[in-house]
Amino acid sequence: MADISTCPPLTRASVQEAHTKIKSYIHRTPVLTCQTITQIANTAQTTSDISTSGQDASLPPAKPRMNLFFKCENMQKIGAFKARGAFHALSRLSAAELSNGVVTHSSGNHAQALALAAKTFGVKAYVVMPSISTPSKIEGTKSHGAEVIFSGSTSEEREEVVRGVIERTGARLVPPYDHPDIILGQGTLALEMQEQVESMTGGYRGEGTTRGGCSFAAENGVGIEETSGRKGLDAVIAPCGGGGMLSGVATALQETGIKVFGAEPSFQGADDAQRGLKQGKRIESVKTLTIADGLRTPLGEITWKVVSDTDKVKGMFSVTEEQIKSAMRLMLERAKIFIEPSAAVGVAVALYNEEFRHMVEKEAGEEGWNVGIVLTGGNTTVDAIAKLFAPSAVQGERQEGKVGMNGEKIAENVAG
Amino acid sequence: MADISTCPPLTRASVQEAHTKIKSYIHRTPVLTCQTITQIANTAQTTSDISTSGQDASLPPAKPRMNLFFKCENMQKIGAFKARGAFHALSRLSAAELSNGVVTHSSGNHAQALALAAKTFGVKAYVVMPSISTPSKIEGTKSHGAEVIFSGSTSEEREEVVRGVIERTGARLVPPYDHPDIILGQGTLALEMQEQVESMTGGYRGEGTTRGGCSFAAENGVGIEETSGRKGLDAVIAPCGGGGMLSGVATALQETGIKVFGAEPSFQGADDAQRGLKQGKRIESVKTLTIADGLRTPLGEITWKVVSDTDKVKGMFSVTEEQIKSAMRLMLERAKIFIEPSAAVGVAVALYNEEFRHMVEKEAGEEGWNVGIVLTGGNTTVDAIAKLFAPSAVQGERQEGKVGMNGEKIAENVAG
Repeated sequence: MADISTCPPLTRASVQEAHTKIKSYIHRTPVLTCQTITQIANTAQTTSDISTSGQDASLPPAKPRMNLFFKCENMQKIGAFKARGAFHALSRLSAAELSNGVVTHSSGNHAQALALAAKTFGVKAYVVMPSISTPSKIEGTKSHGAEVIFSGSTSEEREEVVRGVIERTGARLVPPYDHPDIILGQGTLALEMQEQVESMTGGYRGEGTTRGGCSFAAENGVGIEETSGRKGLDAVIAPCGGGGMLSGVATALQETGIKVFGAEPSFQGADDAQRGLKQGKRIESVKTLTIADGLRTPLGEITWKVVSDTDKVKGMFSVTEEQIKSAMRLMLERAKIFIEPSAAVGVAVALYNEEFRHMVEKEAGEEGWNVGIVLTGGNTTVDAIAKLFAPSAVQGERQEGKVGMNGEKIAENVAG
Repeated sequence: MADISTCPPLTRASVQEAHTKIKSYIHRTPVLTCQTITQIANTAQTTSDISTSGQDASLPPAKPRMNLFFKCENMQKIGAFKARGAFHALSRLSAAELSNGVVTHSSGNHAQALALAAKTFGVKAYVVMPSISTPSKIEGTKSHGAEVIFSGSTSEEREEVVRGVIERTGARLVPPYDHPDIILGQGTLALEMQEQVESMTGGYRGEGTTRGGCSFAAENGVGIEETSGRKGLDAVIAPCGGGGMLSGVATALQETGIKVFGAEPSFQGADDAQRGLKQGKRIESVKTLTIADGLRTPLGEITWKVVSDTDKVKGMFSVTEEQIKSAMRLMLERAKIFIEPSAAVGVAVALYNEEFRHMVEKEAGEEGWNVGIVLTGGNTTVDAIAKLFAPSAVQGERQEGKVGMNGEKIAENVAG
């Protein structure tokens, strides 16, 4: 990773520079819409659904006006937005700095992203993964040519192995989210989404051009026909785990007038950003087995600074496991878009979080908002889906929160 | 349905006219690409995979060069291309002809398509469905305001109920595929796909314009980067059940130089078109429980004429149940596109049918072909996927071919 002292500042201009650097390596992913899901977002929930999910059902259910636009990072290289940050991090290093390879610790999408970026740049990648990682993730990482090194599942065990690799090889650490280069890389998705939604709605807000905007969805009329002619994006919802992507999106959209919100799972305290904001300080460790396994990590030091800045992120909202599953089912069955549970968290906020929905109803009024939602990734399998949606033996333990969907044991997650 | 005597001829110009009529009612669905799946298509199969699927493994495995383009009719209204034919059929009827409503028999996507078109045109729709239809399909049809009337599952029982509805109500029959209006409507997808792929590859073959072409996939570089600069479509693979859509695509692309191929499941004789071609006459009845449940019907009289015309359809190819499942898994897990089993049949031909692959290797040579594949629909559920991919109790009976994925019993399917 580049030394933080040499990193560009967290500004929209830096995100634009990052985009120039990485755009030949990544996909400009499509923005899709779905009439049915937009309709559901515009329909009041029942009082019983509201109270079942543990929300205050004493208010009349919200009836916000929203058009939803899905930024399909599930169709990004390696199946998740993480490719953006990894390519950007590597593109900021000199050949000399890259000569001993790169190393990271991750059992998820960042591991595959770094492996792909390293292969593309012709350098060696070392990935430290807990030995209990699912075989498909290990295989996915190896398939891009990375050397996988196993560790225990606590953060201390993991970091010790990483230190060992660095000492032995001289590889450079590329952390998964808490670094400006990663944040700026992930933020590039917001620049594209802004342009694409402007092009789809025929609007020209801000300095975005429509060149290269994706136009089919507008032609489809999906969702769009319900707008009152509103142009461009009004708001974005981005899922938040370690906060790298949310910070990047907020950085990219600063001073555009587009409001940025974060979405978290609430299960077993995975809503660490929201809880941190209430306490006025970062929560440094999280221990959760939420099905949104990409969002089990707490905010890092740098991402906390961005996420807790209300000029940048206007609010954090959380959803239950059942709400995530329900949103995921709708995205698969109705929108026909294949996503992993973490990617459904932003959709769930738009459809089910009454605090968010009341806020939109009030702020957006009759005219409504065009809301962009980041679909973070699609790295799941039909087998995992079968487990997730079938009532299975493991559900009992799941409900007690001791075992994850893939049988993984609960462990402490700290930023790093 | 309009009297056949009043129908436009089966020509490209008639498909273009149909497109003008229906385009405000339907979605211009995206064309997506997937680098990984294109790579698999360009990799030789192993001899063992070839022989396991019952193909001749004595030849060296084919190594064709293809770029695959997926026309996403799973994202069409009601989740399948059937909306095109239904809207076209209704748009060709006068208000007087529509005054007593419309009727059809279908347990699948055509039922929902007709229900939606009728609702849009403000007329009543009656849908005759076997009483053993899955609840989700019954609900889906009712949700668009159609009156569902149950029948037995043989074609005689079904037709008797339809006749009863017509006598009682004066409703007009809109058959699912064997009618020029339906064929011309379905064919409109090929006009769009031709334009979209031209736009994506920077080509301008034929008279298609690039206006409205979907450009993101080309920008993504997905798949495209592997072409040797070849422009526009060279070939299309379309799944074939009753043959309405395949006939429409072949009609739309006549005299464009784009070759059209049909894809069928082979299970329990579902490859009736291919078998009919070998025998030199149409096979009138099929009895199969292939997982590609949209393709269980035989060709009709009109569609047989188109499909058996080698100027229009260059060849029919079939695939096994395991090949369909494997292609479906790849489309979900790798392309992140949610499709039903029937929609995977064309993909399976491109990836696994050695006869097709040898033909492409020979005809396309080093330059390769740009191959469009119609993803017919996405109307399945996470529950059905869990059943399809989990080894379950019902698999034993399934393998004997007596029970379908949803527990449905085997029954005779005849065209109508």
